[in-house]
Amino acid sequence: MSRLPGCPLCDGIGGVLVARTPHLRVIRAVEDAAFPAFYRVVWDDHVPEFSQLSPTQRQHCMDAVVLVEEALRRHLRPHKVNLAALGNSVPHLHWHVIARHPWDSHFPAPVWSAAQRQAPADALQAVAGALPALEHELAQAIGRLADLHPSL
Amino acid sequence: MSRLPGCPLCDGIGGVLVARTPHLRVIRAVEDAAFPAFYRVVWDDHVPEFSQLSPTQRQHCMDAVVLVEEALRRHLRPHKVNLAALGNSVPHLHWHVIARHPWDSHFPAPVWSAAQRQAPADALQAVAGALPALEHELAQAIGRLADLHPSL
Repeated sequence: MSRLPGCPLCDGIGGVLVARTPHLRVIRAVEDAAFPAFYRVVWDDHVPEFSQLSPTQRQHCMDAVVLVEEALRRHLRPHKVNLAALGNSVPHLHWHVIARHPWDSHFPAPVWSAAQRQAPADALQAVAGALPALEHELAQAIGRLADLHPSL
Repeated sequence: MSRLPGCPLCDGIGGVLVARTPHLRVIRAVEDAAFPAFYRVVWDDHVPEFSQLSPTQRQHCMDAVVLVEEALRRHLRPHKVNLAALGNSVPHLHWHVIARHPWDSHFPAPVWSAAQRQAPADALQAVAGALPALEHELAQAIGRLADLHPSL
């Protein structure tokens, strides 16, 4: 595996480990209480740009992103799912997959803009309560994904 | 084609048309002078979420995103490329593909956060000057992509 010493996504998991394949991991971000359903698909190797993956690696990566998005849609019925691979501060390929609701602190603005309101505690709690079942199902789906690309 | 009347990406192109396939278009965003190399891959049909595309459609879409990213990397040598499909305000699938430089107005923060500085005019001008060649090459590459998925 290609690692860069000092990179936080090479040196650590980066959040709560939800699932993994031999090439990537799905983690739940824990640094922002306003977004309990904030997941990341992290490519294990230290690769900065999505276009640096091979076509098969890209497909494996986006298959995982789609599984996370589908799990969010099925369990949380969000108004929208946001996907982003930015990496300006941590240039190690990771996809943000975030469930967005009209009541959340930033909607309709991106989560990286200024907060517009405080999210209601009961709505946040309802999302958090749905995560164990969501993550259980997601771990199974990602596990099946690991068998899909044996040539990877 | 599936259109939603009133959706700005159904009713219009959404920017300067750079290239298209029978299923998507690449446009240059013109609303932010601080980011001259801000492109979007817009799926023609009105589909809100990436996971609502079929696997072949998703591959076609990400192939286009990758071609834009590769063109940005080759012609502009950016510090990082940012990819995002948000759609909270306009829930019609479109991927932002943005070249980021350490001198730009927001770096390393996302372009949707608060500006940190004014980008130097000469650096912006150098980027803008590279776009005609970039877009010429990109249009050819996207044109070849149109032939890759005849079953789509």
